[in-house]
Amino acid sequence: MNTEEKADSPLKQTLRSVIFGTETPAGKRFDIALMICIVLSVTLIFIDTIGTIHAQYGDYIRIGEWTFTVIFTVEYILRLYCSLNRLHYARSFFGVVDLVSILPSYLGLIFPGANLALAIRVLRLFRVFRVLKLLRYLSDGNILLKAMILSSRKVFLFFFSVSLIIMVLSVIMYVVEGPVNGFTSIPKSMYWTIVTITTVGYGDITPQTTLGQGIAALTMLIGYSIIAIPTGILTAEISNEMVRTRDLRKCNNCGKKGHDNDAEYCNHCGSELEKL
Amino acid sequence: MNTEEKADSPLKQTLRSVIFGTETPAGKRFDIALMICIVLSVTLIFIDTIGTIHAQYGDYIRIGEWTFTVIFTVEYILRLYCSLNRLHYARSFFGVVDLVSILPSYLGLIFPGANLALAIRVLRLFRVFRVLKLLRYLSDGNILLKAMILSSRKVFLFFFSVSLIIMVLSVIMYVVEGPVNGFTSIPKSMYWTIVTITTVGYGDITPQTTLGQGIAALTMLIGYSIIAIPTGILTAEISNEMVRTRDLRKCNNCGKKGHDNDAEYCNHCGSELEKL
Amino acid sequence: MNTEEKADSPLKQTLRSVIFGTETPAGKRFDIALMICIVLSVTLIFIDTIGTIHAQYGDYIRIGEWTFTVIFTVEYILRLYCSLNRLHYARSFFGVVDLVSILPSYLGLIFPGANLALAIRVLRLFRVFRVLKLLRYLSDGNILLKAMILSSRKVFLFFFSVSLIIMVLSVIMYVVEGPVNGFTSIPKSMYWTIVTITTVGYGDITPQTTLGQGIAALTMLIGYSIIAIPTGILTAEISNEMVRTRDLRKCNNCGKKGHDNDAEYCNHCGSELEKL
Amino acid sequence: MNTEEKADSPLKQTLRSVIFGTETPAGKRFDIALMICIVLSVTLIFIDTIGTIHAQYGDYIRIGEWTFTVIFTVEYILRLYCSLNRLHYARSFFGVVDLVSILPSYLGLIFPGANLALAIRVLRLFRVFRVLKLLRYLSDGNILLKAMILSSRKVFLFFFSVSLIIMVLSVIMYVVEGPVNGFTSIPKSMYWTIVTITTVGYGDITPQTTLGQGIAALTMLIGYSIIAIPTGILTAEISNEMVRTRDLRKCNNCGKKGHDNDAEYCNHCGSELEKL
Repeated sequence: MNTEEKADSPLKQTLRSVIFGTETPAGKRFDIALMICIVLSVTLIFIDTIGTIHAQYGDYIRIGEWTFTVIFTVEYILRLYCSLNRLHYARSFFGVVDLVSILPSYLGLIFPGANLALAIRVLRLFRVFRVLKLLRYLSDGNILLKAMILSSRKVFLFFFSVSLIIMVLSVIMYVVEGPVNGFTSIPKSMYWTIVTITTVGYGDITPQTTLGQGIAALTMLIGYSIIAIPTGILTAEISNEMVRTRDLRKCNNCGKKGHDNDAEYCNHCGSELEKL
Repeated sequence: MNTEEKADSPLKQTLRSVIFGTETPAGKRFDIALMICIVLSVTLIFIDTIGTIHAQYGDYIRIGEWTFTVIFTVEYILRLYCSLNRLHYARSFFGVVDLVSILPSYLGLIFPGANLALAIRVLRLFRVFRVLKLLRYLSDGNILLKAMILSSRKVFLFFFSVSLIIMVLSVIMYVVEGPVNGFTSIPKSMYWTIVTITTVGYGDITPQTTLGQGIAALTMLIGYSIIAIPTGILTAEISNEMVRTRDLRKCNNCGKKGHDNDAEYCNHCGSELEKL
Repeated sequence: MNTEEKADSPLKQTLRSVIFGTETPAGKRFDIALMICIVLSVTLIFIDTIGTIHAQYGDYIRIGEWTFTVIFTVEYILRLYCSLNRLHYARSFFGVVDLVSILPSYLGLIFPGANLALAIRVLRLFRVFRVLKLLRYLSDGNILLKAMILSSRKVFLFFFSVSLIIMVLSVIMYVVEGPVNGFTSIPKSMYWTIVTITTVGYGDITPQTTLGQGIAALTMLIGYSIIAIPTGILTAEISNEMVRTRDLRKCNNCGKKGHDNDAEYCNHCGSELEKL
Repeated sequence: MNTEEKADSPLKQTLRSVIFGTETPAGKRFDIALMICIVLSVTLIFIDTIGTIHAQYGDYIRIGEWTFTVIFTVEYILRLYCSLNRLHYARSFFGVVDLVSILPSYLGLIFPGANLALAIRVLRLFRVFRVLKLLRYLSDGNILLKAMILSSRKVFLFFFSVSLIIMVLSVIMYVVEGPVNGFTSIPKSMYWTIVTITTVGYGDITPQTTLGQGIAALTMLIGYSIIAIPTGILTAEISNEMVRTRDLRKCNNCGKKGHDNDAEYCNHCGSELEKL
């Protein structure tokens, strides 16, 4: 974004630094204001689905809703206007999210047909994906993500093994308990097994026979022990990753390595460290 | 507290060392007696809400309750009297807690109106915050707290991501299951999603459609895997923090570093180590 | 498999490398095709147990089912034909799994008696063990397995202690709550204790007396704390195992040790590392 | 036990090495036989509480029960006879457990009064404490126990903080939901809070108001995050303890330290290592 900015008008440059940038004070204020708008807008959509609130404050919510739609529309137009490569922005993940955030409101205006009620209602809920606009503010180069990517092969192996266990247990429980006790089909039995092995335990389907309860107890103990595995994998990776990123930081002045991730000054010579 | 004690009367000084201090035998006995009073007093308030116990032992409980109120009142007055800076104490966190612990009892005396019953009843429960007086005895410089503060940015990032997942899943479940199956509004659907993703699983709202049960199973597996993340973060930080505090301890005699947190003597030259 | 291949016909050798091998492109394609068949076949068996789907698509499912049975039969015959030691394959774990995967379909053909319905139905579900064919694709030399084996003695000790706790709590709850509140026998009480201590919490049996609820609360807190133990054990072992495997990798060129598990080049001299 | 054995008869010495010792083949066989008796005996007591089994097999169970009582009585008498210090054994933890394991059966014989039914029934269940005889076979010098003791102060701090959170949340929920929705008293509200914060979630008491459900969701998220803390503490301690015990092992031949806990030979010179 910093390479081809010469040809642009100063207004465009300023707008860009405010809207896309996060380093100027104005850019920061813009980001915070946008975040608040997103959170408020989504809150409005959520509480509007409560019958009593819709009946009583429906009109105010509609006004608020349109205010936010206008704000996000202006934001979208400005982003389009001041981006260096408009097509690139419009096709990017956030470009699509920004468009999808405002479209449903306008579509609801165009097709107000009562017979399309449900489809429109569902479509309007797509506005909820406005929250994805917040993803912009998630720093993506963090240790967490790296640890998760590094451990993904192990975690996949883990989920593969768990799937096998779930399938075998589901079939056994389907045979032992049968449709009479709520295990009406193997997919339903799998639902029960997942509810049990993850220790959620709704209690909407529970084993009734003594043998079934015994197998259920075994299932719980399996779930209880394998819950340890992803934790173990991830912890080991995060520890590793912390040591690795620590070794990456090197003082430019004295050359000492191995500073803490949150250190701002070299603990050997006191000169400022580069941000990670 | 040790700097400006000259001008005080000996009584005040003794009182202060007993009430505020924890190092003299008298001070320790005072602290233990106070702890027991707090726990007993809160227990009284708790069991008084049980109908049968209130009916049978209400009078005894009222007597016990007033005994504790008097004790805490005397304690508050003594603290005020012997503190070096009275205003400072009165406005400090523990000063306010000490006051709030006794006020409701007196207010209940002043406004005994039957028509204010609920408000007074709720207010009287404020006495429960007496337990916060116990916070005084929580050492605040511990590894646990440090690890939590150090990992707070990562934990915040984690909860931010979890919130996004919860919101998206809530909307999907609201659309799939709908008000007929108990998902009467998006906030209710969020309540269900949190109940499920944290593996609590009350079972007061459960998916009824096959598609809904499939998404629920997915939600549980997500909850099951992301439960590993905060554990991993915190464990890595605690490990780090343990190594760090170990490196902080240095023998004054031979200069050796890296003693265990619970070591009392230098494992190199045998001279006593300073307490951490 | 590479020692006595001279006497074999070229066809047999090619077949063997495709069916048993995983390194040639054809072998990889075969494995992927087989995996898809297994997953599809098991999915068919699962959804066939849903009443409405069986009623509507039963005929199509039967056709699909027989297609897969024929495919797996051909696979079994080919494996038998091209294996170096037929008896050895037939008696191996995967040889038995491959046979059990196809037998139930043929047995269902031979004994179509309606009076054997349940036995046959259960037998037919044995086809589900086809998923075990997938085990072939689980690399068995991984860190996870090693960590689990290394920590198995500690985990056994843990489960032994947990069993003692469960037994003692079961007897106490059986005495406190009794058959009136659903704790009809000690085995049932054990079922309740396991449901509670693993934090599953169906809610099909819940304590009704105040004392019982108090003991239940204690049981939950015990479960909540001991959930940490297997996690701790496994995490420590995985960390250890990671360090150990890292130390095992040595650059053939410069001799440097301690490369990351996923490193492909020596971080000292840049020459390629052997795969782990 | 090895110091004053001269005065004993050879029979006594042999008996002692078999009954108390675990190193001779006969001693090992005795321990295994005893373990099997304990497990079978407790299983009998457990399944005898199932109504249908008691009705059908009650007589056989009574015979089996008396057989085990006689076996344990003989064991107790032999232990008393061959122990070096009889009073010391009789008063030791295992001496009392061994006595309590057999007494209830005899007491049930002496007081067969039907009007004492419940007391006797409860007393008879004391036989279940026979499982505690198994504790003998738990090696007590293990890493797990050390890690738990080392982290006990931190775990106590943790449970203290959790108790404060539970108390405050209980009072809030009692006020918000009230007796109408099942929160009939603060102790009951505490029961609900513990059920929720430990992610057990029976669903026997659930919040009905929107505000209550919001606070419940918060409670779950708190439970979800603090579940990480004991895991983190224990994992860090176990890791530490593993490193420490590793450093304790030293080869007698070449002096190299830092062997794995399960290593049997020095990885430097190949000579056998002493058992940990």
